[in-house]
Amino acid sequence: MQTAVATAKVWIGGEWRESDAEGVFEPENPSTGEKLGREFPVSRWSDCDRALTAALEAAHELEQIPGEKIAAFLDAYASELDAGAEAVVQAAHDETALPVSPRLKDVELPRTTDQLRQAAAAARQGSWRRVTIDRQKNIRSGMAPIGPVVVFGPNNFPFAFNGVSGGDFAAAIAAGNPVIAKAHPLHAYTSQLMAEAAARALKGSGLPAATVQMIYKVNHETGLKLVSDPRIGATGFTGSKGAGMKLKHAADEAGKPIYLEMSSLNPVVFLPVGLKENTQKWAKELGDSCTAGSGQFCTRPNLAFLIASDATESFLREVATAFDSREAHALLSSTTRDQLHESVQALKAAGATIVTGGRNLPGKGYRYASTLLRVTGKTFISAPHKLQREAFGNEVMAVVVADEDELVKALDQLEGNLTGCVYSVASGADDGLHARLEPVLRRKVGRLLNDKMPTGVAVSPAMNHGGPYPATGHPGFTAVGIPAAITRFTALHCYDNVREERLPLFLRGE
Amino acid sequence: MQTAVATAKVWIGGEWRESDAEGVFEPENPSTGEKLGREFPVSRWSDCDRALTAALEAAHELEQIPGEKIAAFLDAYASELDAGAEAVVQAAHDETALPVSPRLKDVELPRTTDQLRQAAAAARQGSWRRVTIDRQKNIRSGMAPIGPVVVFGPNNFPFAFNGVSGGDFAAAIAAGNPVIAKAHPLHAYTSQLMAEAAARALKGSGLPAATVQMIYKVNHETGLKLVSDPRIGATGFTGSKGAGMKLKHAADEAGKPIYLEMSSLNPVVFLPVGLKENTQKWAKELGDSCTAGSGQFCTRPNLAFLIASDATESFLREVATAFDSREAHALLSSTTRDQLHESVQALKAAGATIVTGGRNLPGKGYRYASTLLRVTGKTFISAPHKLQREAFGNEVMAVVVADEDELVKALDQLEGNLTGCVYSVASGADDGLHARLEPVLRRKVGRLLNDKMPTGVAVSPAMNHGGPYPATGHPGFTAVGIPAAITRFTALHCYDNVREERLPLFLRGE
Repeated sequence: MQTAVATAKVWIGGEWRESDAEGVFEPENPSTGEKLGREFPVSRWSDCDRALTAALEAAHELEQIPGEKIAAFLDAYASELDAGAEAVVQAAHDETALPVSPRLKDVELPRTTDQLRQAAAAARQGSWRRVTIDRQKNIRSGMAPIGPVVVFGPNNFPFAFNGVSGGDFAAAIAAGNPVIAKAHPLHAYTSQLMAEAAARALKGSGLPAATVQMIYKVNHETGLKLVSDPRIGATGFTGSKGAGMKLKHAADEAGKPIYLEMSSLNPVVFLPVGLKENTQKWAKELGDSCTAGSGQFCTRPNLAFLIASDATESFLREVATAFDSREAHALLSSTTRDQLHESVQALKAAGATIVTGGRNLPGKGYRYASTLLRVTGKTFISAPHKLQREAFGNEVMAVVVADEDELVKALDQLEGNLTGCVYSVASGADDGLHARLEPVLRRKVGRLLNDKMPTGVAVSPAMNHGGPYPATGHPGFTAVGIPAAITRFTALHCYDNVREERLPLFLRGE
Repeated sequence: MQTAVATAKVWIGGEWRESDAEGVFEPENPSTGEKLGREFPVSRWSDCDRALTAALEAAHELEQIPGEKIAAFLDAYASELDAGAEAVVQAAHDETALPVSPRLKDVELPRTTDQLRQAAAAARQGSWRRVTIDRQKNIRSGMAPIGPVVVFGPNNFPFAFNGVSGGDFAAAIAAGNPVIAKAHPLHAYTSQLMAEAAARALKGSGLPAATVQMIYKVNHETGLKLVSDPRIGATGFTGSKGAGMKLKHAADEAGKPIYLEMSSLNPVVFLPVGLKENTQKWAKELGDSCTAGSGQFCTRPNLAFLIASDATESFLREVATAFDSREAHALLSSTTRDQLHESVQALKAAGATIVTGGRNLPGKGYRYASTLLRVTGKTFISAPHKLQREAFGNEVMAVVVADEDELVKALDQLEGNLTGCVYSVASGADDGLHARLEPVLRRKVGRLLNDKMPTGVAVSPAMNHGGPYPATGHPGFTAVGIPAAITRFTALHCYDNVREERLPLFLRGE
């Protein structure tokens, strides 16, 4: 291989070292389609193997380190990111085409540092420990670190869900687990800059050098070996259903916990009385939600349920007009665009019709026309699985049902989702129908919303960014919200009749 | 099929009905090997299918029923069991050969009713809900029932882990889930009596008739269909590793949570200074723990670790003498005895030697000589997986290591276990070695004990009856201890901006 630029190094065992690479890749700017002039390695298993051994040693050392020191590292890392904001925002903008503002600089990066600081507070307070002490029987228990955590970050959040800085990272570290981050190749340089910030924060923190490690890319087989290796405690994965299912299978076979956030269609139901009164307002909210960030959110509405009426037709015209009149921004990559087009075609083949969009946009960058599809309730009910294909990008499909009965039937066909939402009129005129459909929708989603698009995921202790399979792998866990998200990366440790001086500090006394 | 007795009925949809049976089985008294004169059906899929449909309807109804009513049912059920204690104890004694006292009457049944009452208290208080309210953002969340739960009870606890009365049952019901119990065929009549008590308690409780259902036996294929059916929420399984792994595979593929308690060797480490001072006392404790209930406990020590010394030889002689001098009681079935013998033979083939036992006992009943094996640390380390085969029954294997280093190495080879225990001298003379091995052992077990046999599992909120794979399927959950055990059968439900009057009662106000 001859290239003008040096291939980036991987971060293993506290050192930036040459990858034992089986290949390289060169990220592009999706706004222009041009190469960004950087080269990153595709790691062989030997890189992972080294990282796993170093992580296991780090896990043992971390067991002896108080939460205060872990908290100090997370805080220091957040400060490093603040200090280096300009460079990392520019890198992410170049690699993802996501807007600097409003988004990377003023929304996503502050969210990320806030998350790290909330995790630091939890590490300091031990709020994730769930301490239970039975003095009479002298049995004590609490949650303890689960072991090295592998974090696969997704393509669509270069900061907030990045394997080396995002929610899974913060949660795993807060519980005292080392992290092996698998950066997403679509923002490799951004990840490198963030890892460098983490490395600065790690220095002098008193934490083991291998508390954080990072590689950029592995082939499928290597990924499967990674999530099923005996040395790991658990895996966090955010990404496509296809990749997630393969990793889940491998981890399940090995008996290793894996927390997946795979796919969600986020149904939004617009009830009829409200729709008539709020046609334009609600159409604008849906249109905004489906086009912001080119719709590349795991909580973007893919499905809008409406009962056939004149108001529904007006609503759909409004959405179509909004889609047509706004300039579509570039998607994250040519593959993202190809897959969006494939999904739109598949939905069409399954019985949906295209109201507007459904095609690539000319000019520079990987742009796709914002796409509105529609399908009847009858068709949806007859092919519910084919018509529940996630179309990742600036798209939405309206399911226009004949009447209330068909609405409830259609909702009953929904697979597991992160969110579900009902828009209804404030007067109470939609409440009868709401009462019928709410129990059906409730069972299908992790977070139920009223009168509000699901696209924002607040970092609140009460948040659930999770839901029934196949949105995730288990309906009891959330990927956002502290301390609950931390608990995913813990094991329950019980001490029965153990001598006082041998108890871990958090279980002594009382 | 012509038989003198009527085949027992299955309990489906609130009715005792003829099973759509593909066969029947007739339980034996393992103390005598004689048939007990009762016949039970092996259910076809159609029985399960009916039960699943009824359970799903019941699950929807239960969502609207306050915890107070669920609690009242659990309390009433416990009272019914108290009132009918004599018959159910006799039935269990006949079917399992476990002693009436101390065990079935005065230990296991009171434990079972206590568990039901603790679950009732939790249902009343909602202590399992983990309510989190973010008033500022108006986001609220808490745990909610996961849906119909299938419970497979094990052979060794006719009451306390029975699918229709045990820990998983109580936990699933407390959270508002209907249960489909798969009784264990080795105590089918006991299960029938308990289910009849549950049916009496259900009458007039205001709960749906299909809140509890029960079948007796299914073939493997039907079992796999059951745990992966879209209508269920989750499965609880206690039993053998072989059956557990197959069910896990099916449930994982379907994306259905399954909580397994499969296999555990419960290593006990006897440290040298203490051993010299307490040779007889500790030998007696180990001997008692391995022979009580014919050693048929998931927390019975299978492995005893000792450093080679004269004291170790004395200790092993004491254990052997205790084994030889006590009358061995019958095992649960001829299959249990066959499997115990197979395991002993397999351990021998892997390098262990038989100190005493290793053979069937003559006379009536399925009795096996209490068996002590020994193996060197070197051999254990060279074939750690073959030598970690659970031998279910009155057996224990001593791993005699050469020195401290070999002890730590051997412990590092342990697979996941429910418990691990260290016996050491009170003076502190064993503490140096303890400090070396504790971190190694801690990672391998759910419950760590000092100076105490692991066989008792107190129903305490601080208990962990769980541990790393393959002892269970996930190290974060416990099957005993309320409210934690309840949380296994729940899903996280979040309400974001949902109108006050639409919130579930437990999330309103504040």
